[in-house]
Amino acid sequence: MELINATIITIGDELLIGQVIDTNSAFIAQSLNAIGVAVKSRIAVGDDAAAIQEAIDEAAQKNQIVILTGGLGPTADDITKPLLNTYFGGKMVVHQPSLDHITYIFETIHKRPMIDRNRKQAEVPDVCEVLFNEKGTAPGMLFKKDGVFFFSLPGVPHEMKWLTEHHVIPIIKQNFKSNFIGHRTLLTAGIGESFLAELIVPFENALPPSIKLAYLPNFGMVRLRLTGSGNNEQDLNKALNTQFESLKKAVADYLVTDADEPMEVVVGNLLKSKQHTVATAESCTGGYIGHLLSKHAGSSQFYTGGIISYDNRIKTEFLDVPPSILQTVGAVSKEAVEQMAMAVRAKMNTDYAISVSGIMGPSGQTTEKPLGMVWVGVANKEKVVSKVFYLRFDRARNIEVTASQAINLLRLLIINKI
Amino acid sequence: MELINATIITIGDELLIGQVIDTNSAFIAQSLNAIGVAVKSRIAVGDDAAAIQEAIDEAAQKNQIVILTGGLGPTADDITKPLLNTYFGGKMVVHQPSLDHITYIFETIHKRPMIDRNRKQAEVPDVCEVLFNEKGTAPGMLFKKDGVFFFSLPGVPHEMKWLTEHHVIPIIKQNFKSNFIGHRTLLTAGIGESFLAELIVPFENALPPSIKLAYLPNFGMVRLRLTGSGNNEQDLNKALNTQFESLKKAVADYLVTDADEPMEVVVGNLLKSKQHTVATAESCTGGYIGHLLSKHAGSSQFYTGGIISYDNRIKTEFLDVPPSILQTVGAVSKEAVEQMAMAVRAKMNTDYAISVSGIMGPSGQTTEKPLGMVWVGVANKEKVVSKVFYLRFDRARNIEVTASQAINLLRLLIINKI
Repeated sequence: MELINATIITIGDELLIGQVIDTNSAFIAQSLNAIGVAVKSRIAVGDDAAAIQEAIDEAAQKNQIVILTGGLGPTADDITKPLLNTYFGGKMVVHQPSLDHITYIFETIHKRPMIDRNRKQAEVPDVCEVLFNEKGTAPGMLFKKDGVFFFSLPGVPHEMKWLTEHHVIPIIKQNFKSNFIGHRTLLTAGIGESFLAELIVPFENALPPSIKLAYLPNFGMVRLRLTGSGNNEQDLNKALNTQFESLKKAVADYLVTDADEPMEVVVGNLLKSKQHTVATAESCTGGYIGHLLSKHAGSSQFYTGGIISYDNRIKTEFLDVPPSILQTVGAVSKEAVEQMAMAVRAKMNTDYAISVSGIMGPSGQTTEKPLGMVWVGVANKEKVVSKVFYLRFDRARNIEVTASQAINLLRLLIINKI
Repeated sequence: MELINATIITIGDELLIGQVIDTNSAFIAQSLNAIGVAVKSRIAVGDDAAAIQEAIDEAAQKNQIVILTGGLGPTADDITKPLLNTYFGGKMVVHQPSLDHITYIFETIHKRPMIDRNRKQAEVPDVCEVLFNEKGTAPGMLFKKDGVFFFSLPGVPHEMKWLTEHHVIPIIKQNFKSNFIGHRTLLTAGIGESFLAELIVPFENALPPSIKLAYLPNFGMVRLRLTGSGNNEQDLNKALNTQFESLKKAVADYLVTDADEPMEVVVGNLLKSKQHTVATAESCTGGYIGHLLSKHAGSSQFYTGGIISYDNRIKTEFLDVPPSILQTVGAVSKEAVEQMAMAVRAKMNTDYAISVSGIMGPSGQTTEKPLGMVWVGVANKEKVVSKVFYLRFDRARNIEVTASQAINLLRLLIINKI
């Protein structure tokens, strides 16, 4: 048993000018962590040979595993492959299975002629082990030097994911024996980070040094994570479970879930377990709550549908919000969201409904209704409940926070806490 | 004039185990880039004093600017502040304006008693310049050593953004004179990366070495970016504009926009310019198209609303899709999406409509309808057009690609290309 460390190197100028957000690293880190490999750092560098080489050099000194993504495409700014060829002292050769696969993709799927630069994607350094890429045209590669494994993967997310799952992880498991790493994560709602920390001072003080506690706060919802490692999987799990039980007891009043899952999955599971359904009536979130409820597999079991009533006319015509409400208290009001929730539930004939109406910014405020003011409503057959929030974020974040607070309010209604 | 280089260091175990996706780095990189500072690398490290210190040491050797985010919260896993205090040889002192602000946040906004660990957030090393944080409880800090500026910011995105805009960028502009960096970005649709590269070979070969071309592909849509730098802003802009005009001519048949903006903004601007409106009827995307259309400020000028017809019952009851269609050709069909588009347009009385119905996975396929099969429809008062796609991604990516293809189809209808 030994500690296996890894570094992830992502390549591309777009990462350094902020044009894209790197989601690949998080996926790779999760996958490595699950098999006991500790990611010690993640580094992003540009399409720049010297910078890439320096990052590889440094990573190789401290890690047994180095994973590179990006720079394997067919265009001139993709320099990773020739660079690795030179770095590891190889020469380029055609990899026939990859060439056959690329030919198949172009001739059979795209139905377009293959051009030279596509054909070139099948060329690989003769000093690497090819990781066949069933999902695309750029083969993955594995280089070995002085006991360090260097994996090079394309940056296209679904190709990178497939190669990680089908090649990288199995190869690491076969070649390295690592310590076990374990996590336990729970989600709380209704208490801020500082108060939560105060509440669990006794727990935190009694925590053995081998287990670490981390706080991941997110506007009134805080995720708590315990992490431990050890060379005996059973002992590690036992220690983590014992601590996790104490932690759950300490935060029982605020506990949403003891799994590492988002709020909408918690609520989806509650609904599925009772074979109940929900409909949505969204104004300011414009469909985002529907998206959250439907983005996970199996959501058709509980999510029936919704009305996006962005324009006030739609609130009246589709959700029977009386013009008198819109003219007096307005669309951002208790009266409006309660009517929206009741109407969409009745019209779509579901067990529950969620509704929202608010001012997400950057404009639209009035003297009585500030930016970030949002009303959230939830209803079942017996009652309707609503709540107002005053958010202080930008438009994107206000939409996200509104959605998760609305789904949390539905959770409280389902479990009879409101 | 000199080249100003920066490194961004993000701190938190959650980044190394893949529990959260780092969006802070992209924002900081964009902001630095806009004032001519080149981000040379981005590094993520855990809540680990040795790793943070090593990252700072290395960054200081190669950069004039080092930006750290994360680890400034009130809990025990937040170790950045004491670490920086030791690193720069200071002692902790209370920063009165921050203490007043924290007191105000707790007493006036949260209406909760302030506890010791909140009060402690107002303590800062006496060797730093405090960056007052109007948006939260953790003050930002600036340390200077051997000509290098080290900024430490909280990891909470909206606080980090506010501090970057109001403190970091103004301070850098005041203290460093850098080269100018310029970008020009355009978006193409309907041509793959390899064919696009082939099409612009003459352009790429004629490009001066001072200007770089990058490809950012995304399923049938490719973003092309030109980047140049120079010490004379006017000369740089002139050179970039000349090349950008040639590039636009070369890709004219596939050009969507010559600005760095997403597809839904292009379509929103087209609609706004004609004072036209759009409604949505979504099945498999569950509200995501509505979210894209409404997430940008000003969307109420053109987005009226939509029906999320996740359950087939809603397709019949709200969008008049005849049960006979659902029973014969099914919900994932040309007939269903065309009816959905026409119905939602008529019922919401808009100029245009978008509809989608498909199988996003991981299950739900039949022998005739494979996973990833999706029909997309668009309509105006005169006609309805539909198109089928066969996607090969995971559920999340299938939803994203469907949405952007549907919005692109609307674009083609608006500009009379279909």
